[in-house]
Amino acid sequence: MTHGNAPAATPRSTLVVTAHAGDFVWRAGGAIALAAARGEKVTIACLTFGERGESAKAWREGRKLEEIKAIRREEAEQAAAALGAEVRFFDAGDYPLTATPELTDRLVEVYRATQPDVVLTHPVEDPYNGDHPAANRMALEARVLAQAIGYPGPGGIIGAPPVFYFEPHQPEMSGFRPEVLLDITEVWETKRRAMECLAAQQHLWDYYTDLAVRRGVQLKRNAGPNLGLPHRTMAEAFMRPFPQIAKELA
Amino acid sequence: MTHGNAPAATPRSTLVVTAHAGDFVWRAGGAIALAAARGEKVTIACLTFGERGESAKAWREGRKLEEIKAIRREEAEQAAAALGAEVRFFDAGDYPLTATPELTDRLVEVYRATQPDVVLTHPVEDPYNGDHPAANRMALEARVLAQAIGYPGPGGIIGAPPVFYFEPHQPEMSGFRPEVLLDITEVWETKRRAMECLAAQQHLWDYYTDLAVRRGVQLKRNAGPNLGLPHRTMAEAFMRPFPQIAKELA
Amino acid sequence: MTHGNAPAATPRSTLVVTAHAGDFVWRAGGAIALAAARGEKVTIACLTFGERGESAKAWREGRKLEEIKAIRREEAEQAAAALGAEVRFFDAGDYPLTATPELTDRLVEVYRATQPDVVLTHPVEDPYNGDHPAANRMALEARVLAQAIGYPGPGGIIGAPPVFYFEPHQPEMSGFRPEVLLDITEVWETKRRAMECLAAQQHLWDYYTDLAVRRGVQLKRNAGPNLGLPHRTMAEAFMRPFPQIAKELA
Amino acid sequence: MTHGNAPAATPRSTLVVTAHAGDFVWRAGGAIALAAARGEKVTIACLTFGERGESAKAWREGRKLEEIKAIRREEAEQAAAALGAEVRFFDAGDYPLTATPELTDRLVEVYRATQPDVVLTHPVEDPYNGDHPAANRMALEARVLAQAIGYPGPGGIIGAPPVFYFEPHQPEMSGFRPEVLLDITEVWETKRRAMECLAAQQHLWDYYTDLAVRRGVQLKRNAGPNLGLPHRTMAEAFMRPFPQIAKELA
Amino acid sequence: MTHGNAPAATPRSTLVVTAHAGDFVWRAGGAIALAAARGEKVTIACLTFGERGESAKAWREGRKLEEIKAIRREEAEQAAAALGAEVRFFDAGDYPLTATPELTDRLVEVYRATQPDVVLTHPVEDPYNGDHPAANRMALEARVLAQAIGYPGPGGIIGAPPVFYFEPHQPEMSGFRPEVLLDITEVWETKRRAMECLAAQQHLWDYYTDLAVRRGVQLKRNAGPNLGLPHRTMAEAFMRPFPQIAKELA
Amino acid sequence: MTHGNAPAATPRSTLVVTAHAGDFVWRAGGAIALAAARGEKVTIACLTFGERGESAKAWREGRKLEEIKAIRREEAEQAAAALGAEVRFFDAGDYPLTATPELTDRLVEVYRATQPDVVLTHPVEDPYNGDHPAANRMALEARVLAQAIGYPGPGGIIGAPPVFYFEPHQPEMSGFRPEVLLDITEVWETKRRAMECLAAQQHLWDYYTDLAVRRGVQLKRNAGPNLGLPHRTMAEAFMRPFPQIAKELA
Repeated sequence: MTHGNAPAATPRSTLVVTAHAGDFVWRAGGAIALAAARGEKVTIACLTFGERGESAKAWREGRKLEEIKAIRREEAEQAAAALGAEVRFFDAGDYPLTATPELTDRLVEVYRATQPDVVLTHPVEDPYNGDHPAANRMALEARVLAQAIGYPGPGGIIGAPPVFYFEPHQPEMSGFRPEVLLDITEVWETKRRAMECLAAQQHLWDYYTDLAVRRGVQLKRNAGPNLGLPHRTMAEAFMRPFPQIAKELA
Repeated sequence: MTHGNAPAATPRSTLVVTAHAGDFVWRAGGAIALAAARGEKVTIACLTFGERGESAKAWREGRKLEEIKAIRREEAEQAAAALGAEVRFFDAGDYPLTATPELTDRLVEVYRATQPDVVLTHPVEDPYNGDHPAANRMALEARVLAQAIGYPGPGGIIGAPPVFYFEPHQPEMSGFRPEVLLDITEVWETKRRAMECLAAQQHLWDYYTDLAVRRGVQLKRNAGPNLGLPHRTMAEAFMRPFPQIAKELA
Repeated sequence: MTHGNAPAATPRSTLVVTAHAGDFVWRAGGAIALAAARGEKVTIACLTFGERGESAKAWREGRKLEEIKAIRREEAEQAAAALGAEVRFFDAGDYPLTATPELTDRLVEVYRATQPDVVLTHPVEDPYNGDHPAANRMALEARVLAQAIGYPGPGGIIGAPPVFYFEPHQPEMSGFRPEVLLDITEVWETKRRAMECLAAQQHLWDYYTDLAVRRGVQLKRNAGPNLGLPHRTMAEAFMRPFPQIAKELA
Repeated sequence: MTHGNAPAATPRSTLVVTAHAGDFVWRAGGAIALAAARGEKVTIACLTFGERGESAKAWREGRKLEEIKAIRREEAEQAAAALGAEVRFFDAGDYPLTATPELTDRLVEVYRATQPDVVLTHPVEDPYNGDHPAANRMALEARVLAQAIGYPGPGGIIGAPPVFYFEPHQPEMSGFRPEVLLDITEVWETKRRAMECLAAQQHLWDYYTDLAVRRGVQLKRNAGPNLGLPHRTMAEAFMRPFPQIAKELA
Repeated sequence: MTHGNAPAATPRSTLVVTAHAGDFVWRAGGAIALAAARGEKVTIACLTFGERGESAKAWREGRKLEEIKAIRREEAEQAAAALGAEVRFFDAGDYPLTATPELTDRLVEVYRATQPDVVLTHPVEDPYNGDHPAANRMALEARVLAQAIGYPGPGGIIGAPPVFYFEPHQPEMSGFRPEVLLDITEVWETKRRAMECLAAQQHLWDYYTDLAVRRGVQLKRNAGPNLGLPHRTMAEAFMRPFPQIAKELA
Repeated sequence: MTHGNAPAATPRSTLVVTAHAGDFVWRAGGAIALAAARGEKVTIACLTFGERGESAKAWREGRKLEEIKAIRREEAEQAAAALGAEVRFFDAGDYPLTATPELTDRLVEVYRATQPDVVLTHPVEDPYNGDHPAANRMALEARVLAQAIGYPGPGGIIGAPPVFYFEPHQPEMSGFRPEVLLDITEVWETKRRAMECLAAQQHLWDYYTDLAVRRGVQLKRNAGPNLGLPHRTMAEAFMRPFPQIAKELA
């Protein structure tokens, strides 16, 4: 909100903290592509490859752990490239992903290195997948620690960037309520291409296309006098746990 | 959000629905002054004068009902003028303000006449003053009715404008959580002047000045890298019951 | 739960209380068709025709109020017939539907006449349509009154039938959480035919087909070892405000 | 719900995960006895003996830790036998019971070995005993892990069995709301006998008898036309955190 | 709380606002008896006789409306006398009790006439009886109106007395959480005698005795080092919707 | 509540469990001073010095960790002395403060050594500082463990003392609702002196003075007929997670 017309020394920076290799594509691919399209920098901190919990097809095909991790890494790198973002893998092990001080400390380093203006991560609850709440807890804790001059480590302290929670797979069961509807129409094709990098989960391509259509309908229904919106508006939904800072009510 | 660079046929319109004559000053004076300063139109639908419930001083001085209503009307008109807004009085009777279909219908007319891009009103709960929730219910119901082509009455139907709830006097007891912090620093002097039009409630001038300071501190604490913010940032807090429509996460 | 193997003097009875003419089709058509297919009696108490709030197309075509009501009545009767249910119109006027003691009293009569074993109605909240909560309040109040021997009127008192809330159009914004997922696969074609009776709202046919698919996916994900479920399971979601009575945990 | 008329190769299986040796008797003895009476298999995973936190009498008598554990084990085995269930002790240490990956992993093994159709455990909150929420967290996490083909260990993966939370000692203080009332009248004498195996807690025998009467009264009040229910219906209350899968609304 | 050792001009005053004739006995008989035993004045504003909704036995015996009202009045007067309180009947009609400005205005008069130091009434929710929430709403609204010097009517304005909600019949289903446990051991026999005045509801005598025992157990479990409490402590539970004012944390 | 007129063998005891060196002053200095003024014993268990997360000024001045800890210790000791309390430092390391069984066990020892009649600690949530919820969890868990005769360690078991949560820095964002307003007017000067011992955080002196004024206004607004209260009443706000035990409703 405070990025005025100053000679843009550094572009704005977005940090996405996710549990598994595919999460950033399904849940925030549009937001990432929009930021990249504006010339901003997007960094994805991917805590695990989703090698145990989200690779059922590969396990059924008889593949081994390291092989599966390699596949998921490659898919995720392709998807990130398609969106215009950089992805960093933590390889922390999934199912369960366990929150530890060490992992949180590594996230603090990423916060300080990337100096994010915006943070995206999983919401607080998900009764179907405990890795998502674990990622949320570490993302939030690291964000607070990275602000403290007394917390040791490389890099300068950060300001308190706004946080957005992206939509879980079963929103009503996870206490998810759309608080922000982001218009991703103009980058929709990019998101679709990124989804198609995730070959192992082809059944989700249409699922998340339908979701984008539905959130787009909802966007239009809440958009006030919205003459300018296209018939087929595509959208992503987010929660916002901290207050929005505004110069205007709109 | 959709007010682009089109040749501005009509300026943006804000509608404020309040229970009593002073509410719009204490709770939304900054938001109103900001909109007016941008050249927008602000209409205040003031359902009662607060003649019974918020005029204790006048009653103790032995004034009569009509006299009190006249005083409060004049004060409110002066304050509205100071902020750059127009105020319409419904004279519906306070303490209690009772929600009726007739009153709601009159609000539908105002919605259709003003075609608001933004609506401000009281939040859902207030255990210390039942008139505020009554105003909330009517403001929300009229907003829905005014969108329906089948609902009779003059004026064209409206889109679904975003709604903001302003801060009640006892926020923690009324389920109020600051979801939007509006920077009102640049219009602060205007808001203070408007407050000073309400002579009968002088003890609240400093109270709401302190609140603006406090919300300003909170704004800065949530503003991310906020180098540009002045030392003494003033703010107003709002809730947002419907999803925000966004082109960018910030 | 208590409908054992007794010589079935009276078939089980389901009462559906809805605000507008189309609601029972979109939201509970599957549940109704299932009950009818089991030889049970289903009665729909339809409080309004949705003539003002849910007939935008007809108004834009320039039709008059009575004409619109006649159209909606006919469509609803056809849809009810397709599902195997009887519909009773209260013609109470929509947008707004106002809860009154008289209307509630008429509902008490229906409760006592139909002696329902199950009640379906709207959930408690809907920020996009105040008629739905109004229908909810009257349906619940009449259910309590109809149980009291001291409440006057024709017909015998009723037991306390279980209540189910069907899914609103924007579930996450209305506090809706799927507490019961009803498998409607075997009556899906019937529901689709009933939806197609509502010619004026053709854009919703596919919307509610997609919803049934989605709820079906969710059903399978919560169904335990579910070898018997078909690939394309269709479902409807409900809330259950009163405790379930059970002979077995399953 | 999907246990049709197929040639019943394997009987249905219930898994009960509890913190202390007595919990399964007081809170779910009726549900266990009902399942056993239907010829189903019930396995109790008992994480601790309750040796520190729930054996005050023995400590006051001057007994030693190992002695107390032996007493509680024997009592619990007798109670389980009375109910028709098998109990497995994890001896993980109580007061506090600490959730660990190792303990969760052992639970995954039990899930896969027992292939439960139904899971019973403690609810999420209990401000009077932190061991109960700890057991809840591990029971839920293990249930998710056991479904993943990528999670290592013996036994085949499981489906997603429905979960029921049994009633804590202070329900209103623990966010407990009766969502399912189970009629245990026909196995009441069995539950009473199992309670009487817990000699050290004789003061609770009548307490939980009274509770069963009270939940029975509530069952009848919510049972609709309930002509068939006996005067003295006994019941147990449960919460249901995941959606119920149903073929019929009842 | 501020009733120090001043020469007690006026004794403290308690106002109890209830929906039906029996409510004050079952739910607050102990609190009333305690206040009376301290020499305080207790006034019960009884909005209806419970003639339709809580007199099933009399209706089944074929009695007429006026006869039933007379019976319930007499019983309630006897019970009030036993407790040491005065009861005023509003005869507003139950099942449903409808909140109206007129009835609220009559309550304002009672507030101003009795100048209560403490107010007791029903809690906000009760899905089994809509009269209770209606009484709650009027009791709270009248309490606010009676404080306003601008609200017309006889009697002086009141301060803002603390409010307590007494326990409903199904606490877990009504959002009731015991926030205050009142020790009524010393007046228990008085409460029991008052209950026995309600001959028509003999089945509730033991029910509410058991509840008092149970709440007493809970009191002791929350009482800190409680050496002085008798073995059989009896208690009533209340909620407290407004902040407690204290001179000491205890 | 049970501290009658018995020959006061032991004075009442208050235990305050806080995360950082300054917390007890800003949030509970009044409560502590009041207890001390009554001749009671107050022990502060201070888990960390706030050396990393709450000493930004010292870090900016280039001081070292041990130096900062020494400064904060000295300030806190002076403030505790000013209030009349004893402070014990755990030096557990802040930012993050991590809950461990060892630290909890040390707290159990303090509980048993001090035998508290009242416990004060942080509330459950604080999205701006994770150390506060960590302190809350350990304080609550240790309180339960210290009651169990089977939990090993020196000192006798304790009763279940009432718990109060003090006010966090951003109450509305932390789910904080004032449930108890404590009148600290008579010890206000003492609290101010204690605040002034914390030289490094001078900007908070006026902040917390203003808060005390504001909570005092709220106290008066909820105090009923409050003729005796001074114009400038100062107050602190608390939550109460367990039921209040009372001999009188007031």
